[in-house]
Amino acid sequence: MNTWKRFQQHYHEFSPGGDLFAIDLSRARVPRRFWISEDTARLARTALAAMRDLEKGAVANPDEKRMVGHYWLRAPELAPTPELAAEITRTLGDVERFAARVHEGETTGAGGARFENVLCIGIGGSALGPQFVGQALANLNGRDKTRLFFLDNTDPAGMDETLSQIGDANLSKTLAVVISKSGGTPETRNGMLVAKARYEAAGLRFGDHAVAITDLTSVRKDPATGAVLTDPATGGPLYASSLKRFADAEKFLAQFPMWDWVGGRTSQLAAVGLLPAALQGIDIRGLLAGAADMDTLTRSENTLENPALLLALSWFFLTRGRGARDMVILPYKDRLQLFARYLQQLIMESLGKGADLDGKPVKQGIAVYGNKGSTDQHAFVQQLREGVDNFFVTFVEVLRDAGGDASTLRLPLPAVSKTEAGEKLRAAWGGEAAYNALLADGAQVVSSGDYLQGFLLGTRDALTGNARPSITLTVGAVTARAVGMLIALFERAVGFYATFVHINAYNQPGVEAGKLAAGDILHVQALVERFLAANAGKEFTARKIAEKLALDEKTEIIFKVCEHLAANPAKCVAKKPHTPFYLATFQHT
Amino acid sequence: MNTWKRFQQHYHEFSPGGDLFAIDLSRARVPRRFWISEDTARLARTALAAMRDLEKGAVANPDEKRMVGHYWLRAPELAPTPELAAEITRTLGDVERFAARVHEGETTGAGGARFENVLCIGIGGSALGPQFVGQALANLNGRDKTRLFFLDNTDPAGMDETLSQIGDANLSKTLAVVISKSGGTPETRNGMLVAKARYEAAGLRFGDHAVAITDLTSVRKDPATGAVLTDPATGGPLYASSLKRFADAEKFLAQFPMWDWVGGRTSQLAAVGLLPAALQGIDIRGLLAGAADMDTLTRSENTLENPALLLALSWFFLTRGRGARDMVILPYKDRLQLFARYLQQLIMESLGKGADLDGKPVKQGIAVYGNKGSTDQHAFVQQLREGVDNFFVTFVEVLRDAGGDASTLRLPLPAVSKTEAGEKLRAAWGGEAAYNALLADGAQVVSSGDYLQGFLLGTRDALTGNARPSITLTVGAVTARAVGMLIALFERAVGFYATFVHINAYNQPGVEAGKLAAGDILHVQALVERFLAANAGKEFTARKIAEKLALDEKTEIIFKVCEHLAANPAKCVAKKPHTPFYLATFQHT
Repeated sequence: MNTWKRFQQHYHEFSPGGDLFAIDLSRARVPRRFWISEDTARLARTALAAMRDLEKGAVANPDEKRMVGHYWLRAPELAPTPELAAEITRTLGDVERFAARVHEGETTGAGGARFENVLCIGIGGSALGPQFVGQALANLNGRDKTRLFFLDNTDPAGMDETLSQIGDANLSKTLAVVISKSGGTPETRNGMLVAKARYEAAGLRFGDHAVAITDLTSVRKDPATGAVLTDPATGGPLYASSLKRFADAEKFLAQFPMWDWVGGRTSQLAAVGLLPAALQGIDIRGLLAGAADMDTLTRSENTLENPALLLALSWFFLTRGRGARDMVILPYKDRLQLFARYLQQLIMESLGKGADLDGKPVKQGIAVYGNKGSTDQHAFVQQLREGVDNFFVTFVEVLRDAGGDASTLRLPLPAVSKTEAGEKLRAAWGGEAAYNALLADGAQVVSSGDYLQGFLLGTRDALTGNARPSITLTVGAVTARAVGMLIALFERAVGFYATFVHINAYNQPGVEAGKLAAGDILHVQALVERFLAANAGKEFTARKIAEKLALDEKTEIIFKVCEHLAANPAKCVAKKPHTPFYLATFQHT
Repeated sequence: MNTWKRFQQHYHEFSPGGDLFAIDLSRARVPRRFWISEDTARLARTALAAMRDLEKGAVANPDEKRMVGHYWLRAPELAPTPELAAEITRTLGDVERFAARVHEGETTGAGGARFENVLCIGIGGSALGPQFVGQALANLNGRDKTRLFFLDNTDPAGMDETLSQIGDANLSKTLAVVISKSGGTPETRNGMLVAKARYEAAGLRFGDHAVAITDLTSVRKDPATGAVLTDPATGGPLYASSLKRFADAEKFLAQFPMWDWVGGRTSQLAAVGLLPAALQGIDIRGLLAGAADMDTLTRSENTLENPALLLALSWFFLTRGRGARDMVILPYKDRLQLFARYLQQLIMESLGKGADLDGKPVKQGIAVYGNKGSTDQHAFVQQLREGVDNFFVTFVEVLRDAGGDASTLRLPLPAVSKTEAGEKLRAAWGGEAAYNALLADGAQVVSSGDYLQGFLLGTRDALTGNARPSITLTVGAVTARAVGMLIALFERAVGFYATFVHINAYNQPGVEAGKLAAGDILHVQALVERFLAANAGKEFTARKIAEKLALDEKTEIIFKVCEHLAANPAKCVAKKPHTPFYLATFQHT
């Protein structure tokens, strides 16, 4: 069990901007010798130095030759040039003014309909942040000003379901926010085209109901001369972002920038995250201020006063600097349920790397999962407590229960445990009779929020009792400021950790491979469709089609593609039933 | 890369009840020698034998001395006694009749209001199944007949948010379904009491709007004589379930059974899952039929014809029988997004054990996480492809796109990859000119569903290319039958795997510890509150309170409890600001 002495040594309380924030490492099972070792001090110094360079505008993402500037978003005065600072400030103002015009009914949909819904079309960093923050701060001060929906995949059934939740009759009251840096993300492009078709079917011009968040400045140049190419459609420069070109052509209501020095997974405090949040009615200045305060704190050169260093060093010790343990995120608050998914991207995409900064092969990363407590106690805490010892938990505690009636309703106490500790508690009530009377009349003394804390502390104890490591983060309440603090804390901890293990936290070279392979597969499908249509009525096995297309090495893909075609009537491909799969034949009908 | 030959060897296609179901192990990196070894055959034989005993009614959960009968739910004729068979059949009929009466407006809320909403109050196995199935099959054939809401935690803010989403004015149209086997799950009990208070505040009698799913038969007996105790309130037997007693006292609309031979995590096809599904309008006979067909298939004694054996043996090889790899679940279909969370409970609570069947200490389990593709490609697939090699992926492919307009909208093809394979595809179009023409006019030949399959197959290829193992399950479409099949497949695979590693898959001894500790913590809080109130106006440090209560070893808990009290104004406890945490004082105000 944890002792008060141990707790005092490893509990670190801060008050960034006056809000309580604490990190408790007393149950992390990181030995004292680690904290005082020279190796650890060296890690901290190196990481702080790299972070200082990054914040000053060094090319911290060498593969993509980019600066990494998400910390400037909440402290524009720290940006490396006055132009950048001015652009950050101007964009924030633009976001606020646009949201205000929407809220005040100055910017409206067709026929002057006030926007009640926002349809965010984006994926990855362009969806997870708005989803996490949108749920964390939903209806915090009265009802939200707009309701958010998301198209975050290229599943047609999912898109239709979301669009029908909105309802065609409400599309004129629905503002589409399309988010893609280059415009080249197929899921987002597909979502936008599906949405556009739906607006048009409802008699609405899509551009009158859409804004874009994209790269507004990069232009295409002639590779030979270096001269900026001209867009034949506009006579102006040919912009690199196809979403920018589309938004220009379709006369979108507005366009907001995505900068090349802000990565998708750290873009919640850029327009990507701030515009949906502002439209929803969230206090975005609070988000920014909380993040800025955490940034100030996490620049401290004293490890014990720097929660991001404490966190990242704990990760390093616990995962042995090579992902040896999974990170389980357990916030005890429904509002924070999507935090684990948000962190899954931030951490796994940043740290899951196959080469270090010198190009040496590594297999880095930390797996992240979790949902919320105490719900997960009834799902996987069984394994955490007794099963495979391959994880550490990060509990997130929220001191303020919030809630209205539900937080004040008084509930009965459970019985004490049949243990020595339980016996002491029974005695502390003044003996058996007093204790029994207390339970017998169902002593309505605790609330559902007390239970929530009880489960958090109880589960922590149960894990500690079985030598399973955990960290606890405590915030006073779920507010915009607190959410900004949590985002900034993990952003910086990830940056520090990347320096410890000598990797680039800001690229994602591995996501291209699957996308490129997918492109080739779509061509295989199109070729198969063309072949079958040209030979309508004739039956072919996958093997035979591959032979005919001279794509023998694609036989498996051709089989899979044919199975998919045959399952979708609109594709006019029939499969002959009752044959072994490798002899199954397909034909255009 | 995978070859057609390898694919043919390791792709297993089945047609349970005429529906396509396939399991593809060609990328699982399980060597052929494993499949043909005598050790593997022995594992299979042992697991099949244990499963036969279980299905015949053996005490397959020895710790709790219980039979394990979830397979009988979809084949009552296999239940070990005619009485059990009759009870299963009768309950299914009761569920269907109750749902029909609700749908037809015969069973209504106060004032004859037709029930439009269902508020499920339950946690763990009593929530995850209805949530997963409810989302998977939502609005599948026209709009759902009722809309489901969940209270699945004891967070007051979360409960208030859900209740206000329903709206007090709609409570008369809202049917509460309270699910707890013993009634002793505090989260569920709290949720029920909060809901009850809300109904009453709206002038409605809770019992007129509530049904219970609980243990209806166990009774309390005199430990000395063995005689059934009498309930003073009713004069009848004293039922063990406090929810049963509450439902009787409050005159709930109906009560449905939870049997001791069905565990929470396998109760989706008992009343726990079937009642919410039936109320929603889901084809529950389809769910049961799909599960029954999969059960038939997974009783096969031929490993290669038994998908649950294939799956469980693959897990065993890949995780080395000790959780050495995490299981990442990636369904490429929005409807199946909660499948990973459902499986997280089923698998981690079943397999995450600290002792084997002989009581020998082990650290068993497999960590499970995932959400949906292709969305997760933009979150953590970077790490899966290049980072730490500590997982295997289970892709779930759905052949039928479904969707309306979104599935038929034609979209442009991407460019082929700049690889040799890409060059071959370019050539297959009939040369450069034809290829360029195709892309230039934005050839609208593929759909968003084609992209979805392309991403699945492309990501699979990208993982295979980096020697990361994956399994692919394919279903024809998301239907009630297919969902039933998937549930039954994993239920049996978990059972087989538990036999391989010689553990009890059907108990959860580790979840009690946290719950008991939580109870003690609530008593500490109540004692602290009483102490502070009795000493109102005086300031105490946590240390001092512990001393006064003679609970020195609880100082840390007392500090945590005081922090929580001080953050919630209704508790009338003030904390003195600006003191180091260990000197912070608390006082009743």
